[in-house]
Amino acid sequence: MENPTIHKSAIIYDGAHIGKNVSIGPFTIVHKNVVIRDNTTIGSHCELGISSADPTHDGPLIFADNTLIRSHSIFYAGSSFGPGLTTGHRVTVRERTVAGQNLQIGTMCDIQGHCNIGDFVRFHSNVHIGQKSKIADFVWIFPYVVLTNDPTPPSTLLKGVTIEKFAAIATMSVILPGVTVGEGALVGALSSVTRNVKANTLVTGTPAKEVGPTSAIKLKDGSDNSAYPWRRHFHRGYDQAIVRQWIEEFKTSTKNES
Amino acid sequence: MENPTIHKSAIIYDGAHIGKNVSIGPFTIVHKNVVIRDNTTIGSHCELGISSADPTHDGPLIFADNTLIRSHSIFYAGSSFGPGLTTGHRVTVRERTVAGQNLQIGTMCDIQGHCNIGDFVRFHSNVHIGQKSKIADFVWIFPYVVLTNDPTPPSTLLKGVTIEKFAAIATMSVILPGVTVGEGALVGALSSVTRNVKANTLVTGTPAKEVGPTSAIKLKDGSDNSAYPWRRHFHRGYDQAIVRQWIEEFKTSTKNES
Amino acid sequence: MENPTIHKSAIIYDGAHIGKNVSIGPFTIVHKNVVIRDNTTIGSHCELGISSADPTHDGPLIFADNTLIRSHSIFYAGSSFGPGLTTGHRVTVRERTVAGQNLQIGTMCDIQGHCNIGDFVRFHSNVHIGQKSKIADFVWIFPYVVLTNDPTPPSTLLKGVTIEKFAAIATMSVILPGVTVGEGALVGALSSVTRNVKANTLVTGTPAKEVGPTSAIKLKDGSDNSAYPWRRHFHRGYDQAIVRQWIEEFKTSTKNES
Repeated sequence: MENPTIHKSAIIYDGAHIGKNVSIGPFTIVHKNVVIRDNTTIGSHCELGISSADPTHDGPLIFADNTLIRSHSIFYAGSSFGPGLTTGHRVTVRERTVAGQNLQIGTMCDIQGHCNIGDFVRFHSNVHIGQKSKIADFVWIFPYVVLTNDPTPPSTLLKGVTIEKFAAIATMSVILPGVTVGEGALVGALSSVTRNVKANTLVTGTPAKEVGPTSAIKLKDGSDNSAYPWRRHFHRGYDQAIVRQWIEEFKTSTKNES
Repeated sequence: MENPTIHKSAIIYDGAHIGKNVSIGPFTIVHKNVVIRDNTTIGSHCELGISSADPTHDGPLIFADNTLIRSHSIFYAGSSFGPGLTTGHRVTVRERTVAGQNLQIGTMCDIQGHCNIGDFVRFHSNVHIGQKSKIADFVWIFPYVVLTNDPTPPSTLLKGVTIEKFAAIATMSVILPGVTVGEGALVGALSSVTRNVKANTLVTGTPAKEVGPTSAIKLKDGSDNSAYPWRRHFHRGYDQAIVRQWIEEFKTSTKNES
Repeated sequence: MENPTIHKSAIIYDGAHIGKNVSIGPFTIVHKNVVIRDNTTIGSHCELGISSADPTHDGPLIFADNTLIRSHSIFYAGSSFGPGLTTGHRVTVRERTVAGQNLQIGTMCDIQGHCNIGDFVRFHSNVHIGQKSKIADFVWIFPYVVLTNDPTPPSTLLKGVTIEKFAAIATMSVILPGVTVGEGALVGALSSVTRNVKANTLVTGTPAKEVGPTSAIKLKDGSDNSAYPWRRHFHRGYDQAIVRQWIEEFKTSTKNES
């Protein structure tokens, strides 16, 4: 029996697992080693489950419930994603990427594989995540940022970048190999980050220098409110339980301050 | 009757308007809310008229006469373009983009929607136009430039960038939120523009600093001629009426100078 | 007789030459002027042999033996590649590109045409090679690097960049028009290279400044070994005959030093 939500031009190889309430767009290819759980939408012109050059990296490609993959996207075999993955168009995700729930990957992002990505991470458009990157929960990475990994290119020694919780990396910044960007830190646009960044600290420039605590940055809404930690005021797209916890956290901290 | 210039593998949904002398390439999808006027070529592997996540942004996607959209391009519903639109490959244009005539969008450009774009604007490859950008007539933006919009990322407050007439932004520059680049200004390559740029002024660096008037920049052709305003010498791709007006303008200005 | 390794949805125009042991993926288009030699794999959703706007640039598009073109890639008519070409996904290569053997072009690279590329050149992801670039053998170019060509944008005067043998350009650097990067030189990440770079020299910054000889850069493996020339220690992906020659070269040079 044909599945009416799988377009007739899509190519689904035997062995692929297609859950309930899954739609697959025209001209999309799903290879045999792909597991697509329920309530998922795959756009047109995608290819899911490509074998990597090194067959030891193959294995299932697993999408959990409530995934949305937009058109022209490419995922290799051997990666897994928690529920709620949402992508833009033309993303590339290589093998051995393990990500938590509710990851958002913007249009034209290139995730090179062998990465660990936490929960509720957001990559805006055209972000490049080098191999061996470790990205904690609630991180934001903005357009054209590159996380590098080779300290002396080209070499065989790869030192991945670590981005800790709640950190935000602004547009067109490069994080040099082995660098850790601390919890809640902010990297300004077009910065080259050559050293570790302390928690809750703003760095900018090439090479990036410490400017001060992120708490000193005001929202540009005419108020005197601090823009960081951003989770105090920015809640779009997060689960209600998480938002309640953040609201509670800052209630408490305000009490402590007074 | 089949239209011989629409490839048999293309998917054209009922309700799409296809004008006269329109060709549509293989594996391209045209949704119902798309209006394609006459003398237009759509390449292969495109998807035109995608609904955005917010259905209030839907509405027709309108291409005027003499449009050329190259392969693998994606346009959302709810935008409109004047005649003579030409794109490279794999462009993405989101909803609520309104553009004048003769827009050129290079390969892999990403126009995020909610933008106003004038006449005869040129985006070279891989330009990222953030939401709420306003781009006047005759602007040039070169590869890997990003127009940003969020002054304290992430936040809900978006301040778009404004680029005024005849301005040129060179490769890999970032224009910070809310900044205005003045008429005829030039932003040098790999600059981070944090403040408004005066008309006919060159800025470079991170953060960008004023270098001087653009008129002091010589053409690198061995002559002593100034390279700016560029419309004095660069006429490729503009209507003859416009070019005649520019020639007249500089005739007059030379007279005034002497 | 159908060729079982050419997917039935692929469109191969009459006149295309398909060699022995060639596989072509679903939804791929091969135009009439394309020559594909033996032992070659073409992925899905590609378009090969597109005519450029200027028909005088057309002519055959020639892929030699042992080529691998990954999905969603686009090649124009009028270019030729030596054996062993390997690409990532979504590469764009325009007309009048002439490349030697064993070129690697990463995902989303954009080669603008009218370029000369030597043997064993490697472009990582999302590299932009402007028209009139000349790239010698064994060059490495890392993600988001742009080789520019217009000294006074926009103008009709294009001065291409020259990259000499064994040079490496790190992530997100811009090479300004007409600049030559010398043999074995290293350009640090996020640099703007406005002047010629001497052989075996490290430059960094915006604008890039000379830091010193590349030989002073140590491998980050805990040893005291120099990371450059990289061919002393990095051999992955090169022919055995070449590697043997490099090993011999440094044996000799060590003897000379002692």
